[in-house]
Amino acid sequence: MRAGPDLARLSLNQITIDQASLPEAIDACGRAGLTVIAPWRHKVAEVGVERAAELIHGAGLRVSSLCRGGFFPAPDPAGRRAADADNRAAVEEAAALGTDTLVLVCGPPVGRDVEGARAQILAGIERLVPHAEDHGVRLAIEPLHPMMISERSAIVTLGEANDLAERFDAHRVGVVVDAYHVWWDPRLEAEIARAGRRIFGYHVADWLVPTTDRLEGRGMMGEGVIDLRRIRAAVERAGYDGPIEVEVINRDAWARPADDIVAEVCAAFLAAA
Amino acid sequence: MRAGPDLARLSLNQITIDQASLPEAIDACGRAGLTVIAPWRHKVAEVGVERAAELIHGAGLRVSSLCRGGFFPAPDPAGRRAADADNRAAVEEAAALGTDTLVLVCGPPVGRDVEGARAQILAGIERLVPHAEDHGVRLAIEPLHPMMISERSAIVTLGEANDLAERFDAHRVGVVVDAYHVWWDPRLEAEIARAGRRIFGYHVADWLVPTTDRLEGRGMMGEGVIDLRRIRAAVERAGYDGPIEVEVINRDAWARPADDIVAEVCAAFLAAA
Repeated sequence: MRAGPDLARLSLNQITIDQASLPEAIDACGRAGLTVIAPWRHKVAEVGVERAAELIHGAGLRVSSLCRGGFFPAPDPAGRRAADADNRAAVEEAAALGTDTLVLVCGPPVGRDVEGARAQILAGIERLVPHAEDHGVRLAIEPLHPMMISERSAIVTLGEANDLAERFDAHRVGVVVDAYHVWWDPRLEAEIARAGRRIFGYHVADWLVPTTDRLEGRGMMGEGVIDLRRIRAAVERAGYDGPIEVEVINRDAWARPADDIVAEVCAAFLAAA
Repeated sequence: MRAGPDLARLSLNQITIDQASLPEAIDACGRAGLTVIAPWRHKVAEVGVERAAELIHGAGLRVSSLCRGGFFPAPDPAGRRAADADNRAAVEEAAALGTDTLVLVCGPPVGRDVEGARAQILAGIERLVPHAEDHGVRLAIEPLHPMMISERSAIVTLGEANDLAERFDAHRVGVVVDAYHVWWDPRLEAEIARAGRRIFGYHVADWLVPTTDRLEGRGMMGEGVIDLRRIRAAVERAGYDGPIEVEVINRDAWARPADDIVAEVCAAFLAAA
């Protein structure tokens, strides 16, 4: 009996095969019969955004989201201006790639000032929204696991991401629910329900026991202890029926052939996502 | 200018110098002029609880808390009975050591069942409360960082610990606020205020960047990015004026002389706690 959703919903988040270039990842998707991809900007930049769009669409793929904008907190106005410029470019790249969703990884605090970081994140999103609206791009705030606060994001709960998103129009700013980042949260199901139509993306991976690397130690679905079926059911009850991105950031996997990893992604998705 | 509280409030949590036996830790406290200690049960067991009490009180020390009871979730009734027996013994040991506070590290989920673990934790505390009351011991639920959920505790937010504690009398079941475990939480100050007189203990350490070990990679106060003054101020506004336990779980520190670590603890406490 198959537990997971249909492969047509699988989007390969490119970091899962970071060893591959964007053209290589596109080819790997084609060989595996996948139809959706979620590129990262550093891979897009290697070929240029216009060529990236040609390659993706020429292969019959569509883009579920672009990863990523964000990293709003900065120690000074020059840093904030640089972040703003980079985020506007990210919006433009998302539009050029034909996706309506830009993922925001909001950035860590400067020093010890977590509250200040959260205020800078709100202000940064406020400045970005008009540009995103002009380009038909939605901003999707992704809360990360609290263990990543100092490297990646001061936004570490879905509740906080919802609080931020609700300051804006529901079709402009929403959230990404990444099971790996939020599975521990006692308020998870309530916050998923609250997010509702603001769920702009759903990501999966698994939590290995033990987890030996905080940033690059994720497991394939079914290898760990996250109750992925329960979380997917909650996300679907909230109304989300879009692509499910497989984002398995695992250093060991990057040392192996990309096609092997993609085959494992497909099998794990069908069995356990 | 001294930032921290007086050394009279410093309790040395024994795991900070896990390289030392209980008698050695007591001697180290004496040489440093400390008057409060928080022993761990495995160290107490090495000398026996009655002898441990004699040594501690003979040296003029008092005990802020005993670490630890908990680990309630088990895969079967026999496992739960074993946990119950161990927890009743922990209560008796706390009473014998002259402390009114037993710290509860509530235990990880069995498999993928986080909700089931939380239900087992509540049930386990309910079974333990009468025995604790008989011995004049308060139960202090310590929420751990969400990155420790699979090894240590399904209770990973102060809000959840408060929810649990509020099912019982305020003088019987409360919480430990450990800055290392809760500093990332956007609801931290609200939940500290909510805990109020249920705060039975306050622990400090610091979050290193990067954190290279999830379980044994804590920093000394001031070495990391936790805004400890802000958290202590919130805890004190909530009415807590008891001992502050220094609980720096750091594998590298355990390879060094215990007296050196205790000296660093005192200096860091005065400068940054």
